[in-house]
Parts: sequence; C-alpha cells; structure tokens
Amino acid sequence: MTASTKTVEAAKAALRRQTIELPSWAFGNSGTRFKVFAQQGVPRDPYEKIADAAQVNLYTGVAPRVSLHIPWDLVDDFSDLARHAAGLGVSIGMINSNVFQDDDFMLGSLTHPDKRVRRKAIDHHKQCIDVMRATGSSHLKVWLADGLNYPGQDSIRGRQDRLAESLAEVYGALDEDQHMVLEYKFFEPAFYITDVPDWGTSLLHCLALGDRASVVLDTGHHAPGTNIEFIVAQLLRQGRLGAFDFNSRFYADDDLMVGAADPFQLFRIMHEIVQAGALDPASGVSFMLDQCHNIEPKIPGQIRSVMNVQEATTKALLVDADALLAAQQAGDVLGAHGVLMDAYDTDVRPLLATLREEMGLAADPMAAYAASGYADKIAAERVGGAQAGWGA
Amino acid sequence: MTASTKTVEAAKAALRRQTIELPSWAFGNSGTRFKVFAQQGVPRDPYEKIADAAQVNLYTGVAPRVSLHIPWDLVDDFSDLARHAAGLGVSIGMINSNVFQDDDFMLGSLTHPDKRVRRKAIDHHKQCIDVMRATGSSHLKVWLADGLNYPGQDSIRGRQDRLAESLAEVYGALDEDQHMVLEYKFFEPAFYITDVPDWGTSLLHCLALGDRASVVLDTGHHAPGTNIEFIVAQLLRQGRLGAFDFNSRFYADDDLMVGAADPFQLFRIMHEIVQAGALDPASGVSFMLDQCHNIEPKIPGQIRSVMNVQEATTKALLVDADALLAAQQAGDVLGAHGVLMDAYDTDVRPLLATLREEMGLAADPMAAYAASGYADKIAAERVGGAQAGWGA
Amino acid sequence: MTASTKTVEAAKAALRRQTIELPSWAFGNSGTRFKVFAQQGVPRDPYEKIADAAQVNLYTGVAPRVSLHIPWDLVDDFSDLARHAAGLGVSIGMINSNVFQDDDFMLGSLTHPDKRVRRKAIDHHKQCIDVMRATGSSHLKVWLADGLNYPGQDSIRGRQDRLAESLAEVYGALDEDQHMVLEYKFFEPAFYITDVPDWGTSLLHCLALGDRASVVLDTGHHAPGTNIEFIVAQLLRQGRLGAFDFNSRFYADDDLMVGAADPFQLFRIMHEIVQAGALDPASGVSFMLDQCHNIEPKIPGQIRSVMNVQEATTKALLVDADALLAAQQAGDVLGAHGVLMDAYDTDVRPLLATLREEMGLAADPMAAYAASGYADKIAAERVGGAQAGWGA
Amino acid sequence: MTASTKTVEAAKAALRRQTIELPSWAFGNSGTRFKVFAQQGVPRDPYEKIADAAQVNLYTGVAPRVSLHIPWDLVDDFSDLARHAAGLGVSIGMINSNVFQDDDFMLGSLTHPDKRVRRKAIDHHKQCIDVMRATGSSHLKVWLADGLNYPGQDSIRGRQDRLAESLAEVYGALDEDQHMVLEYKFFEPAFYITDVPDWGTSLLHCLALGDRASVVLDTGHHAPGTNIEFIVAQLLRQGRLGAFDFNSRFYADDDLMVGAADPFQLFRIMHEIVQAGALDPASGVSFMLDQCHNIEPKIPGQIRSVMNVQEATTKALLVDADALLAAQQAGDVLGAHGVLMDAYDTDVRPLLATLREEMGLAADPMAAYAASGYADKIAAERVGGAQAGWGA
Repeated sequence: MTASTKTVEAAKAALRRQTIELPSWAFGNSGTRFKVFAQQGVPRDPYEKIADAAQVNLYTGVAPRVSLHIPWDLVDDFSDLARHAAGLGVSIGMINSNVFQDDDFMLGSLTHPDKRVRRKAIDHHKQCIDVMRATGSSHLKVWLADGLNYPGQDSIRGRQDRLAESLAEVYGALDEDQHMVLEYKFFEPAFYITDVPDWGTSLLHCLALGDRASVVLDTGHHAPGTNIEFIVAQLLRQGRLGAFDFNSRFYADDDLMVGAADPFQLFRIMHEIVQAGALDPASGVSFMLDQCHNIEPKIPGQIRSVMNVQEATTKALLVDADALLAAQQAGDVLGAHGVLMDAYDTDVRPLLATLREEMGLAADPMAAYAASGYADKIAAERVGGAQAGWGA
Repeated sequence: MTASTKTVEAAKAALRRQTIELPSWAFGNSGTRFKVFAQQGVPRDPYEKIADAAQVNLYTGVAPRVSLHIPWDLVDDFSDLARHAAGLGVSIGMINSNVFQDDDFMLGSLTHPDKRVRRKAIDHHKQCIDVMRATGSSHLKVWLADGLNYPGQDSIRGRQDRLAESLAEVYGALDEDQHMVLEYKFFEPAFYITDVPDWGTSLLHCLALGDRASVVLDTGHHAPGTNIEFIVAQLLRQGRLGAFDFNSRFYADDDLMVGAADPFQLFRIMHEIVQAGALDPASGVSFMLDQCHNIEPKIPGQIRSVMNVQEATTKALLVDADALLAAQQAGDVLGAHGVLMDAYDTDVRPLLATLREEMGLAADPMAAYAASGYADKIAAERVGGAQAGWGA
Repeated sequence: MTASTKTVEAAKAALRRQTIELPSWAFGNSGTRFKVFAQQGVPRDPYEKIADAAQVNLYTGVAPRVSLHIPWDLVDDFSDLARHAAGLGVSIGMINSNVFQDDDFMLGSLTHPDKRVRRKAIDHHKQCIDVMRATGSSHLKVWLADGLNYPGQDSIRGRQDRLAESLAEVYGALDEDQHMVLEYKFFEPAFYITDVPDWGTSLLHCLALGDRASVVLDTGHHAPGTNIEFIVAQLLRQGRLGAFDFNSRFYADDDLMVGAADPFQLFRIMHEIVQAGALDPASGVSFMLDQCHNIEPKIPGQIRSVMNVQEATTKALLVDADALLAAQQAGDVLGAHGVLMDAYDTDVRPLLATLREEMGLAADPMAAYAASGYADKIAAERVGGAQAGWGA
Repeated sequence: MTASTKTVEAAKAALRRQTIELPSWAFGNSGTRFKVFAQQGVPRDPYEKIADAAQVNLYTGVAPRVSLHIPWDLVDDFSDLARHAAGLGVSIGMINSNVFQDDDFMLGSLTHPDKRVRRKAIDHHKQCIDVMRATGSSHLKVWLADGLNYPGQDSIRGRQDRLAESLAEVYGALDEDQHMVLEYKFFEPAFYITDVPDWGTSLLHCLALGDRASVVLDTGHHAPGTNIEFIVAQLLRQGRLGAFDFNSRFYADDDLMVGAADPFQLFRIMHEIVQAGALDPASGVSFMLDQCHNIEPKIPGQIRSVMNVQEATTKALLVDADALLAAQQAGDVLGAHGVLMDAYDTDVRPLLATLREEMGLAADPMAAYAASGYADKIAAERVGGAQAGWGA
C-alpha cells in the first residue's frame, strides 16, 4: 500500500495532537507475588519518578502528563510537586486512589460490610480529590481490589448496593470541573468475585452517578478471548469511554508493554478509536500506560510502549476508510478484511521517524535515550534511600 | 446439617411453585458441525415434540410449558397446536425467532448492512409475534447469530446502530402484554465478533427498548472463567433478568445437560435467585432448558436436567440465611463459606422423592419413565417421515 | 530495518523451497452446526476440488499438493485421480481418515468399548492406506473425534489402552516408506474429554508406535492462552513434528484463515521453524492449511492464506539471528525483543512480489486470480449435481 | 444411594490409610502482588510452622507430614527440626527448592543463559538434597519460575536443552533411595513462556532422567478448561504421577482451598485415583496441599482442606464400579453418568464423622480445633519477631 500524501499528512497532524499519559509507578520497582527484583537507579520519591517520566516525554514528545498514585506518591506539598513537573515539561495527570493496602481493607473498601471501613475508604477518595485540587488534576481514577475469594463470603448484591452508595458520595465530593473514571477488572487480587469485574458493571455505576463519570478500559483486565475493540466501540457509542490503561498480556493481567503480546489487537483497538473520531483530544478519551517493567529497564520500557501506541495509531490512521466502507457495504468479506490488513501490514516506522524529526526530536527515541547517559547517571546518583515500589 | 422442619416445608412449598420450561428442539436430533447422529423415535413434527415434552412434565410435574422455534415449529394452525398441548397437560411457552438459516442472513440479520435483509429479519420477528398471538405465548425470545468472522468485515459500531433500530421496530410491534427477551452469546457461529456478545450489550439494548425487554442468560454463553452468579445478581438488581437458558459446558457452548459439568456453579446461581426472591413466579424470571442431547436419549436427558435444576434449587433453599448473614457481617470468611457449603453438601434427593410422592408422582422420575415403555412405543410408531432436527 | 542483500537472497531461496499443502475439503461447502451456507461454483466431486486447488498453486507457485479426506474424496479409480492432479500441476498429499460420521462411531472409533466398532475403525484406516498406495501418498493423517460428553460415560484410561492397541495395528499395516501423523485437539465434537487432547498424548502414542509416527499441530486446537511456539519448539526438539494444520482462531477451533486472527503468533511459530532449520523440506515438517471458508469465497481464501504463511515465513527469515543471540546471551530483554520485532514490523510484501515475478508469477496472486475469470466460469459451469461438503 | 456395609467398610479402610501432606508455608503469611495481609499468631520460624501443622494432624488424623521450602525453612540443625516434628507426631515430607528469589535468578535458574547462574541453581538443589539427608526426606520437589516475559527474550529451545542438562546433574546427585518430582505450571511469574508449562514437558524431562523422576500435578497450574482428570489418568498410565499439589482456582493459580471452587472436579480426580488403585500408599502418589490462606485463618483453612480431600475421596470410594463398568460397556451414556453422580450426590459427612470417632478423633475437626483455644494461645504468645512469609 502506498498511502497518499494527503493521508500521510493528515495522519501526522493527528499524531502530533495525540498524547499518552504515563504512570508514576511504572518507574518504581514492581514484580509478582513471588519476587520484586530491584533495578539500579530506581526513584526514591515522587520527584524522581516525575523526572524519569519527563525523560520519556523528552525523547517521544507525546507523553506530557504523569498519573499519581495516592498514597504511593504522597508529598508534603503537591503544589511544589506540580511546579517540579512543570519545570521538567510535564504536568500531573489523573490521581489514582488506593484502598487495597491498608489492613482495614482486607475484605473490601467501598463495598465492605462494615460501615466504618467504607467511611475510611470514602474519606481516602476525598483526600485524593484534595490532591487533585492541589495539583490541578482533573480526573479521579478509581480501581478497586474489592471482591471475594470464597463463595458465600459476602453478599454479591449487597456489595453492589454498598458500592453504589459509596461511589455516590465520592462523586458528590468532586468539583464541577472534576471527573471520575471507574476501572473494571476480571480478577486479581480477588479470586472468586471482583465487585467491578466487567465494563457492564462499571458503566451501570457511571450512568447512575452522572455525566462526569466514565469507564476505564485496561487492556489486560478481561476474560480470555474477550473482544476488546467491541467494548471500545460500545463505550464510545455510549459516550462513556474515559480512559485506556494500556498494557499487554498473554494470560492474566500480565502488565507487559503494550503492543508486545498482540500488536494486531492494539491496531484494531486504535482503528475503532480513529473511526469514531475519538483520537481527537476533545473526545475526552485519555490514553494512558499502566505497565510493570519487572525485568526490563523502566524508562526504555515506557519509551518503547509509547512508540508502540504511536505505531498502532499510525496504522489505524492509514486505513482507507472509503475503500473499507465500500467493501463492507458490498458484503465483500475478503475485500474489507484486506483493506484493514493493508494498513496493518504497512511499515510505519519511517513515517514516524520523519514526524519526530519534524517535531525536533531524534528519529529513534530508544537510541537517543540510550545515548544520553541518563541511565548511568541515575544509577550513580540514586544510592541510599528506599527505592519506590508498590508499597511506596 | 439437619434442616428444621419449617425450613424443609418452606422449601417444598417453593419447589411446588417452581416451573421449568422445555425447548421443543431438545426432542429433535442435534449434533455438531461434524455429524448429527439420528436417534430412534425422534419426533417428525411439532405435535410429536410436544407429546414428548409432555412426558417430561408427566414424570416431573414441574415442566408445564414448551418453547417453540420458528420456523422449525411452523404449523398450519397454531391454535390447534396449542389445544394439542393443553390436551397433554402443557402449554406453549416462549416463541423463539430464527434469523440465521436463510441464505440472506449469511452476513447478518437485524444488523445486516443491507436494509432489505434487515427488513426481512424484522418481518420474521413480526411473524413470530403473530404466532404468539395464536398460541397465547407471552414472550418473544430473540437470539441472534449476527456477527463477523474477520476484522474489518463490517463496522462494529454501525452494526450496533442498526441493531438498535431493528429491535425498536420489533419491540414496537409487540402487544401491551407481550414481552421481549434478548439473549447474548460470547461466540459461535460468528468467530471474530458477535453483535450481542455479553450481558452489558443485551442490557443496554433492553434499557433503550422499554420496560418489557429483559435479558436472557444462557449458562453456556460466556468467556472462560466468567462468574455467572455475579451476572445473575447484577441483572436481578436491575430488574432485567428475563430468563435462563440452562445447560452446561466444559469449553464453549457445549449444550450439555444442566448440572452435569459444574453442579456447584448451578447451586450458586440458584442461591442468588433464592436470596433475591426471584424463585417466586411473580418475579418474572423464567427457568428454561436449552440443551442438545447429541448422544444420550432425549426424553430422559430432559427429565434428568429438570431434576438437576430441582436439586440445585433445593440446596439453595436449605441455605441458613440468618447464619450466612451473621457470618458475612462478622467478616468470618470460613464460617460464611461453610454455611453455604453445608447446604451444598446435603443430599437432597430424599427430600425431593418425598415431595414428588406428595405431589402424586413417582419418587424416581427416571425409573418411572423407563418403566413406562414410552421409548419403545415411539421407536416403533415413528417410522417413516423426516425426523425433526435443527433444520426443521 | 534494512536487511542485507545476502539476507534477502537467502530468504528468497528458502521461500522458493517452501511448499504449502492444501486440503481438498476447503473447496467444498462448510459451516457451523447452525448452518452451512452454500456458495456458487463449489465442486461436486474430488476432480473439481483438485482443479480448484490447482488454481491456488497456479497463482502462488508454492501449493503443489492436495490432501484427500476419505470417504469424502472416494473415487472409483485413485490412479486416475492422481493423473488428473498431475495434469494440473499438483499431486496428492496426505490421506486423511474419517471415523466420525458413521453411525457406529457415535461413542468412539479406535477407542470404542465395543471391539466390533474398533475393528471397523481400524479397517477404515487400512482402506486409507490402500488409497495411499494408489495415489502415491506417503502420509496417513489421523484425527479422531473420539471422546466423551459426560463424566463417567466411559473409562478414560481404558480408552487410552484401546487407542494404543488400535493405533499399533494401523501403524503395523503401513508400508516401510509410509508414515503416520497423529493430530490432537483440545475439544469438539466431544465436550467433556477428547481422547487425544494435547501434544503430550499424541507424542506418547507416537513414541510407542515407532520412528515413522509424528505429531500434527493444528494451530486452532489448544486451550485459551496456550503458547503454540513452545510446543513447536518442543516437538522439533523431539524430532516429532510431522505437520501443521494452519488456520486461525479467536475462540475455539474457528478454522479461519491462517494469519487473520493473530499474525504475530504465526510469525513466532515460523521463527521457531526457521531457527530449528525445519523450513528445509528435508526436515520432514509439512505445512498444511486446514480451514473453513464459511462466508468468504474459497479459492481466494486459500490464496490469501498461502500468502499469509509466506509473509510470516519471510519475516522469520529476516530476523537477525546473530544480533538476537547476542542480546539473549547478554540478558538484554528489550534488545532481544527489539531484534525480533524489527523483523516483524518489516513490510515484506515488496520482497514477495519481487520473488513471485522472478518465479514467473504475477506479483499479486489475489488480483491475478480475480482477473482470470475462473470464479465466474465455475459458477456458470457447475450447475446441477450435489455440491461437496463435509458429508461428501 | 445406599452403599452396602461392605463398600462402606472398604471405604473406611482406604481412608484410614490415606495421608495428606501439608506445606510449611501455608502457615506463614501469603498474599498477592498487591498486598500481603498479616494475620495474628503467624509462626516466626520453621519450628512454629511445624507446631501449627501438627495441629492439623491432631484434629484430622491424616496429615502426618510437613513439606519444607528451602531457604524459607532453613535452620541450623535439621536433625533437631526433625526431632521437633517427631515429638509433635509428624515428620518431614518433601523438600522444595527455591531458585526464584535470588537476584541472580531474575532471568532464569536451571535454564539461564549464563552458566554461572545455572551452576548456582544446581548447587542450591544439592543443598536441598543435603537437607533431605538430614531430615530423612525422600523426595526433592522442583518447581521452577523460569520463563520469559517477551517474545525473543531468549531461545525457547536453548532453554530446554539447558534445563535437561541442569536437571540431569541434580538428579545424579540424589541418593539411590531419593526421588525427584518435577512440577509444571501454565504461567506466572513468567508471562510469555514458562519453561515447564505442561505435563508433557515435565514428563519428557522425567523420562530422560530415570525411574526415580516423576511429575507433580498442581491442580491450579493449567489453561482454562483443561481436563485435569485426563492428565491424572495419563500420568498414572505412564507410572509417573509423583504428587499432587492440591488447591483450587477460578481463574489463574488462585491457590484457594482445595474443593472450594469446583468440588465435582476434585471428585472426578479422586475417581481416577481410586479406579487406578493409586490411593494405596504403595502406589507412590503423594497427596499434598499447596495453598495460600490470604484472607482466612491458616490452621482452620488447612483443616477444612484436608476434610475436603477426604470427602471427595470418600465419594470416589463409594462409586459402584461394577455398575459403572456395565453401563460403560453397554454404551449407556446416561446410566454410566448416573452411577458416577449417584456417588457424588451422597452426603458422606456422616460416614467420615463415624470414621473419625472410630479413630479416636472428634467427629468435627473444625469445631474441635476452634474449641481448643490454640488460636488465641498463639496470637498471645507469638508477639515480636518477624512473621514468616514467602520471603522467610
């Protein structure tokens, strides 16, 4: 396929506007229940995490926001942290609550049978809203570990009722210009039932809450075989796709680099986005990474992931929409499939390299970062102190 | 566990009210894409199917309705068929449409890109509504094979829009006292995307249609690992669980006898039903079988399945709800789980045998049917003609 | 990535030697248990199937063999059929037995509890060996539908013992220069247990039989999430990978066109093949298609599939093996992964177009076939008679 | 079903001989990658773990062995630890190696590309063999976390070769009366490929090692839908089923209490065991628990699990083998299935209560333990020190 100049230029324009948000916790240590392998140069505090995230933006040019996780990223002065970010060319993105690590939350948080525990979980979310105000963040991101390990352990329906009530109070505490996004997850850390296990449940709660609530789709949070692009299309049709948590998986919530396990799936997802006009920042869909670089270096892992999203997006932008529609309308199964594959099979790396150079960046962000010496620098400097991880 | 007399009597009372609807097509031949093995004595027409279904009711006492499938069960005079059923002690249940076997429907029906095909599919549903009027059936049951085999084949979102429009016309054609139930299915016969793949999609369409639309949950229509009792609880909470299609599966939509693959799951499902008060016929939840007896004899296969549903229901009725709630409120994980298991581990067959004798039935329906000679009779009589199957 | 001229020329040489075997049944009608949609111009007999297969070879140049399925492809004179094939530039490939459609085989064939049925199944395989002799085919391909639908239905272990005994007799009937390949399948048409469900079971039987028995890996015959390239590597390591049945799937054994669902997986599989030197015809690994073109035209479906295998193979041939090994040895996770992705991300269509032209073929086989008028010709000519399908 | 006195007595005799091995680590804290919730009274060292395990044996009478995990259970004097166990009525069971927590093992252990790391992993296993000698343990249990997270990261086949070489050295270091059992696992903590992912791989390595190597089947280590009883039957047929790691799962390797997720599956597994005569201790099959009591108390969790295995075993012992065989031979699908279900549906708790009383135990081990005051005692006594977990 040779895309027309017009198509290529339109693609570049769209790519210039696309941004990808980075998670602060991707720069800290992470692992499995078996072991967290520490890496050299890992940040010791939120300031250093933001500094590392800024590196990703420096070399890709499209990653200008950093999500925070509370309490992992608690600091004394969030305005100062926001200034620190601004000084590095990035800003604070979504604020993620955490109600799964305090001992009180062993059997649930917003769904807990005990009102006292629910109160504590609700109050934590109000604290997160305060952080939003202090940092200028517009979105509260809620992912709950709530669920059950054993049949009978608690009332499935009772927990839904409590969840609805708790979420309503949190939502009510938001300012008029603040939003809530609610993530669903198939399983883990609960192993029998998760209280928000699927897009349907998340959407029902969002619909009950109001216009400023929408769904977070984490690409690793589905049952085997689930067609994710269908969910994307469905949520876009409802106007309730708030954000992606991009990563990839072969089995469960593996949290590998996006595009590493099934790049064709990522392309199909981005095709739905492009078709629906949701690549436009005005659409309100946020493209975020949520990954664990357990064995690979973290900054390059994030750079590579940003590039993978860009490549899938580019391919989606190159789909010949007119030819596709014509073949679809004609019932030409192989023809329509062929139009889509034609875009997917294209090597878009040269186009992106050119775009980067036009944006004043190095054509190859991985090589440019590697050449910068930053990895050695932080390994040398960040000695002593406690490395950041999921606990801090 | 020894249940109190009061609990046992309450359980019996509930069991006397529970009814289980049978599918006419379970009595015809069925199979896989590889082979349909014919069985002896299989019905040649809807009258004979209903006669066989009446046998199941005769020995279990709780299966008084038969679902029809149009056009498989087309007859010249549906009033006559309804009288035939009444004469055998049963009535006509839900009317199932079929828009997946006409050549025009190869690429879809209510979602097809071609308006002409959508019109044909809508008109078929109106024909089914006429059958409802002629038979006194109150429910139109819609399951669609619509979907895609290849990425790009058609617009995912466009198909949702067309589906919504088509369903609205069908729903609008219903009488005031008629209902629509919409089934979802994970996959098959479409292998890339199914247009109604999950409960969320079905529910969204039902919500858009109106109060008389609700969701059909087929226990075999989910991704691996999906927690079905959660969906049951969620749909009950929304007041939109219209009907079950009971069967069981190890892999895909295996359509084995309900309770044969995972009897504990069936119990957990019935536990949600009982807890929500949805066992009461007034709740509007219909308990139906939808199975394929590919290698086992069909009438005994249905009898056994009805008994399996009854056993799971009985166990659910024996759960000590007070003890369960107390343990749940106390956060006693093992205790609450233990209360549930205590009911599950109970052998409820003696209770059901007693109940049947109290109802004037044989204690053992399988043995009573086997002793009746009916199987030999139909094998001898039903010679010549074309055996019923999925095509007729 | 810009591959060196030397690499490109080596790739072309390997691609010229690679052959892909076609299944005769791909040209007949196929479908699901719900419906087989007939297509225009479908062959009525094995002669016409071979004629269609020869078209695929005509435009791709790499599909010179056709597998037969007995009894679907029974003819009076197999020598005549072989001559017919030769006249069209193709030859007879593997002979596939069929012991799943005779009424006697409802509860099993080589594993059946009744010795009489096992004898019948064994004798059918001997008939297939006769067909091999008559057609010059060197491989007997055995896929069994044997299995159970219900727990308790038969003895799992007893069936393994019977299977071993039956296979030994079939194997013993082979000539010295004939081979057996044994396919495994996760499920379908049996829904509780399949008697040869995984590569381990197939391999154990092959090891017991002798050197001329090896495993068939159908890419659609695994549990969700199974890593297929691992199995490829393992079977190659044991010297027992006999053949691929290529197709693709999203859910179960969907039998879609290979490369249509997960092209990256196909590339990883071919990477294992290339790394192990098994692309060489002397390795004894046969690359076959086994697909159902339920809704797309069959000849173009096969052409596209052959091209998809070629594209994946080409990418695998472009992997920089030295750079890969160096990164692997250094523990450079991102670097090693990057080397692999570098080849995958390459657009190899120009290379293949050039190769085809060098081979005297059209650069675009799909377009060349479409332009040939063959589809219209067979649609016009093949009127009357019974179209071939899975039954004939 | 009313089992004959003869059958009941035979069942009791078999149950008296059955033993279930407990893992020392089940008594320490465990959790997920998100959080390890600490519990009161958790052991601080291997002596306390064994004391807790002895409680399980005290109340169930069938759990006389405790598996150790090295280095988690390292002590200065293993003979002393063995004496401590003996004093509490239990003995040391299998010794589990651990080559997944040292920093050197981030990219593999016995399969690592670097010979130095492989040497370290091999030496660790030799250290475990020394522990076996000191404690009188007869079995070395090997589970490897080795695998890859990203395609291309290392050579799949190269790792198999290195694994074979490493295992051979470890096996060679065993004494003549010592055995190795090799566990397989579908995934986790590696997320692309696990080096021993399935029973076929484990068995191939065992066959290459020698007669004293056999396979460990962990019931949570399979792909969704995998038929575990088939694998049990297959491994028994090969004489290579070394041990079970019992637990249960809904999704991945959830490590819930055995029998809590799918008690019917557990029954089917035990049915294969009973049918093959492998319940006899002389068969060499070891029945072990491997569970994580993340949110429930640990000692009662283990007691309940032992009881669940006993209940499933009892039901399997009550299967009417003659009636089952007759129905199977007759091709009576429903009849054969019915015989199996008849045993499963039986409430075996009274039989087990009687048996316990005959053995001088309390009829209800859960209640007896609860009444003992042990939980309060250890909560009060075990103050200070570091609670044991997966790290120690």
